[in-house]
Amino acid sequence: MLRASARPRSLLARSMSSAASGKIGFIGLGQMGGHMAANLAKAGNHLVVFDVVDANIQAVKAHGKVDVATSPRDVAKQCSTIVTMLPSTPHVTDVYLGKNGIVHELTKDHFLIDSSTIDPGFTKSLSAQISEKGAKIIDAPVSGGVNGAKNATLTFMVGGTKAAFEQSQTVLKQMGKNVIHCGGASTGQAAKICNNLALAIQMTSVAEALTLGDKLGIDPKVLSSIMNTSTSQCWSSSLNNPYPGVMEGVPSSNEYKGGFASVLMRKDLGLAIDAAKSVEASIPLTSSVHQFYNLIVNQGHGGKDFGYILKFLEGKE
Amino acid sequence: MLRASARPRSLLARSMSSAASGKIGFIGLGQMGGHMAANLAKAGNHLVVFDVVDANIQAVKAHGKVDVATSPRDVAKQCSTIVTMLPSTPHVTDVYLGKNGIVHELTKDHFLIDSSTIDPGFTKSLSAQISEKGAKIIDAPVSGGVNGAKNATLTFMVGGTKAAFEQSQTVLKQMGKNVIHCGGASTGQAAKICNNLALAIQMTSVAEALTLGDKLGIDPKVLSSIMNTSTSQCWSSSLNNPYPGVMEGVPSSNEYKGGFASVLMRKDLGLAIDAAKSVEASIPLTSSVHQFYNLIVNQGHGGKDFGYILKFLEGKE
Amino acid sequence: MLRASARPRSLLARSMSSAASGKIGFIGLGQMGGHMAANLAKAGNHLVVFDVVDANIQAVKAHGKVDVATSPRDVAKQCSTIVTMLPSTPHVTDVYLGKNGIVHELTKDHFLIDSSTIDPGFTKSLSAQISEKGAKIIDAPVSGGVNGAKNATLTFMVGGTKAAFEQSQTVLKQMGKNVIHCGGASTGQAAKICNNLALAIQMTSVAEALTLGDKLGIDPKVLSSIMNTSTSQCWSSSLNNPYPGVMEGVPSSNEYKGGFASVLMRKDLGLAIDAAKSVEASIPLTSSVHQFYNLIVNQGHGGKDFGYILKFLEGKE
Amino acid sequence: MLRASARPRSLLARSMSSAASGKIGFIGLGQMGGHMAANLAKAGNHLVVFDVVDANIQAVKAHGKVDVATSPRDVAKQCSTIVTMLPSTPHVTDVYLGKNGIVHELTKDHFLIDSSTIDPGFTKSLSAQISEKGAKIIDAPVSGGVNGAKNATLTFMVGGTKAAFEQSQTVLKQMGKNVIHCGGASTGQAAKICNNLALAIQMTSVAEALTLGDKLGIDPKVLSSIMNTSTSQCWSSSLNNPYPGVMEGVPSSNEYKGGFASVLMRKDLGLAIDAAKSVEASIPLTSSVHQFYNLIVNQGHGGKDFGYILKFLEGKE
Repeated sequence: MLRASARPRSLLARSMSSAASGKIGFIGLGQMGGHMAANLAKAGNHLVVFDVVDANIQAVKAHGKVDVATSPRDVAKQCSTIVTMLPSTPHVTDVYLGKNGIVHELTKDHFLIDSSTIDPGFTKSLSAQISEKGAKIIDAPVSGGVNGAKNATLTFMVGGTKAAFEQSQTVLKQMGKNVIHCGGASTGQAAKICNNLALAIQMTSVAEALTLGDKLGIDPKVLSSIMNTSTSQCWSSSLNNPYPGVMEGVPSSNEYKGGFASVLMRKDLGLAIDAAKSVEASIPLTSSVHQFYNLIVNQGHGGKDFGYILKFLEGKE
Repeated sequence: MLRASARPRSLLARSMSSAASGKIGFIGLGQMGGHMAANLAKAGNHLVVFDVVDANIQAVKAHGKVDVATSPRDVAKQCSTIVTMLPSTPHVTDVYLGKNGIVHELTKDHFLIDSSTIDPGFTKSLSAQISEKGAKIIDAPVSGGVNGAKNATLTFMVGGTKAAFEQSQTVLKQMGKNVIHCGGASTGQAAKICNNLALAIQMTSVAEALTLGDKLGIDPKVLSSIMNTSTSQCWSSSLNNPYPGVMEGVPSSNEYKGGFASVLMRKDLGLAIDAAKSVEASIPLTSSVHQFYNLIVNQGHGGKDFGYILKFLEGKE
Repeated sequence: MLRASARPRSLLARSMSSAASGKIGFIGLGQMGGHMAANLAKAGNHLVVFDVVDANIQAVKAHGKVDVATSPRDVAKQCSTIVTMLPSTPHVTDVYLGKNGIVHELTKDHFLIDSSTIDPGFTKSLSAQISEKGAKIIDAPVSGGVNGAKNATLTFMVGGTKAAFEQSQTVLKQMGKNVIHCGGASTGQAAKICNNLALAIQMTSVAEALTLGDKLGIDPKVLSSIMNTSTSQCWSSSLNNPYPGVMEGVPSSNEYKGGFASVLMRKDLGLAIDAAKSVEASIPLTSSVHQFYNLIVNQGHGGKDFGYILKFLEGKE
Repeated sequence: MLRASARPRSLLARSMSSAASGKIGFIGLGQMGGHMAANLAKAGNHLVVFDVVDANIQAVKAHGKVDVATSPRDVAKQCSTIVTMLPSTPHVTDVYLGKNGIVHELTKDHFLIDSSTIDPGFTKSLSAQISEKGAKIIDAPVSGGVNGAKNATLTFMVGGTKAAFEQSQTVLKQMGKNVIHCGGASTGQAAKICNNLALAIQMTSVAEALTLGDKLGIDPKVLSSIMNTSTSQCWSSSLNNPYPGVMEGVPSSNEYKGGFASVLMRKDLGLAIDAAKSVEASIPLTSSVHQFYNLIVNQGHGGKDFGYILKFLEGKE
């Protein structure tokens, strides 16, 4: 019995070896990526990292066994499993396809996880290029913010084959709580931007309701509690209420500090608009809120949580 | 013990007498009001009703002891507690203040409950006029739709004094499940329209996300389940999903039949816009969705559930 | 020859007598009405005026023979031809139908000219009430602003019967340059608000083009001149350009002082939205710009010319 | 003296020869380009053309001396002056920078004129790449539509150096009437898209005014004539009125046939949105009308003149 059960265990250990016991590459150690890489290091993985900012690298080194590569290509030479967490489509293009990109060292053993939030159209084409060479890639953008990254409670939305999804579990579970399979290549990106466009619109819906209700004489706390037990309940009303003082411990009650910055929401809405254009989808409210967040950023409030839309609507400076 | 406990019961009976054991007036026996009055009759109340449509009156008579009045004024002559459920501000104006209106028989004993969804500005002024004459009035618009009215599971959003709110409990609990005090006069109306504007916007947010996601290749069921465990969860994504086939038993899966008609949503959004104008509140997305529902109605789809916005965005006829 | 020509002159004098040589009533001597009444006085008419602000009355008295009435009703007692120029629908309601309103002295000889910009629905109903009593009324809102009022170069958009339109010529030509017959009762109001909603949208179109062009590196003067000889030419691009410095002598080149105040544009857009709601017309861009002007007013810039939308879009405070 | 003065003339002739008397390349012979090339041929130029559709080539050959090249690169081998008229940014990328692109034969003598309407950001970068190699390029998008192309009455909006602008005159004047210098590289594109976004918004403004006015009872012809002498006058009200029957000889009076197709307006608005995103400009109404034209296209009316927005707003199918 023991030996019988030992075999599967040893098989499991071997199947994990490429992902978990081999070195794992990590490219992009910014606000999100830094915490994610740290969690992988803390879990006992031997990392090979690359970032253009040295301080970011030093921060991760404190958490475990971390080697430093000279380029994305160099990472690909040393590791078959690589996670990338980058700020925009051009960065991902460069890291994967650029002069010193991953592509130049690509083998059939490579398993690539791109957690960046970028244009799903590009993701689709990147995935095709990588797959053509026999390697595997998934898109796995996250939700949960900086705190989720820090506490390893992120949700990963995975686009790719069923097999690649299965293979990603071990690594992703060390950085997050939920790993969801959304479908084929690029559907992780699609899920992420669809979630975020709905989120931005819903936040604005709550801001409009509370602003109007306030002026009509109903206490924002009372109105919020009614909404929360009614047909206008949403995450933005019940867990991240934008009216200062309605909830404790949320950005709106702390001068809109922390949370999800308006400038990042603008970026994700921009991706949604690009994607909608490419497939001829109509997203009129998304287009409107994208414009509002652009106004908010241009008025100098891009660093504030996106619940700041309430203050924008109130028209107070 | 028995006698001791008997006293409060007898006190309760007496305190209920003005509201529950006396006759209760009911004006407006349409789709909603008909069911609400029927529930009061079934609970054993003796009703005095008025409606301009005879068939509506007959339908209620089947459920209990129901007298028929010749006018709103006649109702006020026979009952001190009166519930009104009318389709628009002009109807309410006429029933309360018109030639044969309640106002002409008003005494200090009258307790008026207006469950219509109307302009909160008018409600405020009506309340002031009624209170001046020593009578009591609350605004108590409902949520829960025709099914809620039928099954006595409505939520009442009450605006008025604390005392009037307390007094309304017995009657309202016979027609609904939740009775919420929103604040002073007209805040019930404010809560209702704020909830509904947020609801319309959130429904559109889900429709945009699912339309775009669909075109990007992600299964609407998968995307909906991701949204429902994520930051874009809302009532419209999790309990009234607008994409046909994602959920069973909702209007979208039944050709958008039943549910909350687009033409009624247009009406409530129109009230929100009027109210916002009167207090100089900015509600840009509400303004946009009001226009969309106007287009939907003009295209001949006003009778469909407001989740039809998804089909409108898809641009298919 | 002289005598021959003298006859028509005398005929003319007689035909003018009811309108011009009899006393003319004028109610509402604000920014616009004050100048309009002054022009009537300068033209030799004997006026009977009413206004709630004494300083407004004194200002008009300086320009000719001006008696002061104690109420609108008193004006109607003394004059058969009356011009009203009031800020909003409630004011017009009060002046015509209120306790001391014109309606109480109405005879078949009365000829009423309402130059206020108000709800066309109300105008229609007012017209019906006045006509029922055998008196005549036209709606004659103006364009041309305070300068047009001062210099008697206003354009009057007249709604009413052909006969009433003809009768109004003598009086209106003393206050303006163009008198246009728009159709039956309330079409003057309709023309005014349709013109102004298109104007607000077009101004915003120019602001968006110049803002974007500026950021893309094209000189606003060059772009404006291209637009003005191209398919995007409009009054707002060629005669009231909103980009500071492109044109001389316009509000944008004078810190948006003078011109047509944003708060007044918001009012007219509000009327358009009310009117559209009443007839179920879809006006999505009007709804959007109404919201923008509400934001502008709430940010404290309501007194600035409506070309300030350009600065709003630039997001600079 | 004669011989001395002869020399500059002969120099002039030679310097012109490459542009005017030498062969001229033309790539892209579609709806617009076909007519433009035909006009160059009719003016006596010897053309070398390339297009992927043989029928397009044959149509041009009928108008003069026309050789056929095997690729854009082949055109560049035979001609120093080349005009390109292509449907989108990827096409332009391919023709200039692709495997068989112009760039591979580029010399300092090349003078390139791109009349395509494309992303100004790409134009800027293309211009930099071409200039680096010592060749000259201008962006010269057009307005005037198919009729302008046919009748050689186009307006060219030119972005490039002053010298390049001067050099372009001879060729461009053979295809159009007005040649306007907008500024440095890419400002021609900027002018084109800024004009067109303002145009689309203004058309919608006229459609909203006429739709509302119509429902309020004012004759669209009367309202149009009032607008045309007032502050809401614009090209769309006075020269391309969208209400059927108000003007003769415009698309709206011919079932919206001819004119500027909604699907092309959608494309140009899409370029505006991309450009705005790249420079962080706020263009909320542009974003809205882009969505409306997307709905129009998805409803199957993309081939109709963009004045069809009036019918879209009316909500009639």
